[in-house]
Amino acid sequence: MAYIDLPPDMPGIMGLMKYRPDTGKILSDLAEALLQGDSSLSRGDRELIAAFVSNRNQCNFCQTAHGEIARHLLDSQKEVVDQVFSDVAGANVSEKMKALLNIAAKVQVNGKEVDISDINHAQELGATQREIHDTVLIAAAFCMFNRYVDGLGTTFENKPELFKEFACQIADMGYAKANKPLFEN
Amino acid sequence: MAYIDLPPDMPGIMGLMKYRPDTGKILSDLAEALLQGDSSLSRGDRELIAAFVSNRNQCNFCQTAHGEIARHLLDSQKEVVDQVFSDVAGANVSEKMKALLNIAAKVQVNGKEVDISDINHAQELGATQREIHDTVLIAAAFCMFNRYVDGLGTTFENKPELFKEFACQIADMGYAKANKPLFEN
Repeated sequence: MAYIDLPPDMPGIMGLMKYRPDTGKILSDLAEALLQGDSSLSRGDRELIAAFVSNRNQCNFCQTAHGEIARHLLDSQKEVVDQVFSDVAGANVSEKMKALLNIAAKVQVNGKEVDISDINHAQELGATQREIHDTVLIAAAFCMFNRYVDGLGTTFENKPELFKEFACQIADMGYAKANKPLFEN
Repeated sequence: MAYIDLPPDMPGIMGLMKYRPDTGKILSDLAEALLQGDSSLSRGDRELIAAFVSNRNQCNFCQTAHGEIARHLLDSQKEVVDQVFSDVAGANVSEKMKALLNIAAKVQVNGKEVDISDINHAQELGATQREIHDTVLIAAAFCMFNRYVDGLGTTFENKPELFKEFACQIADMGYAKANKPLFEN
């Protein structure tokens, strides 16, 4: 049971978005812009960054949800999700993606951990300034989402079929459309 | 100099909001809802929570900006900003506020640090569920803002007069109106 009275049967951030719909709508818009909006990083790679940071923050709901969305979008490379959870250096992702995940890992600890050498390394491997910007903001945003979900003790049950269905829905509809019913009476 | 090419003379998050206006607008709306929107916590107390978390994250821009806004709003109790930065237990704030700052301090580390006993303690001292919710979300949001500002190496110069002027502007106009020019061409 969560630490405050949330709507029943709404695990993780779902019940929180329903509890305070004005901020819920803004947070959903942020997820939509960062993870589904225009970007030269694929949707799968952006969900991978979100899942990776959530894994480092040990947030069960977010790492399960975004891990499943990443698997769905990355399709034939779905095994990389578990690989980056356990060992980024050995994961079957591009060197550019490893450099971006390295930046995300530092942001997860504290923004000040990121050094100009991390940025230069990512740029040498082909990352654009905008891709670096988006990686930092996705990582920072999941440091918020994870703390919101866990700081209020929201519920989580590992029901793989439910998360698979949820992943299909987000992949097809996006966050703004999938979450819209939460902000209506 | 920041790690990516940002507009000149826009320190901290200002240049970042101008760099990517679609996410900038969403982040500004989040600050507006959390710090200026309807709440039974005073605007001064909410800015104090934001400044306190930014201080714990060692984010110079955010702790200076929100510390100054808190001082402006708390007026005759402005000394509590420096007090909570150095010693929450000894600060001249209510016991309820200490209990909320205790929750914010745990969220700053990781959402999982918050325990049901922290929630019960805050409730026994008069905090409502909504106040606890808002404290957790403000603390979580500043874990994002701080990482965004520092993870991209944005500039900060401690010019007290500029921050005082900025604090007056935010206190009078709010975030949405004060930041609006950043999202227009």
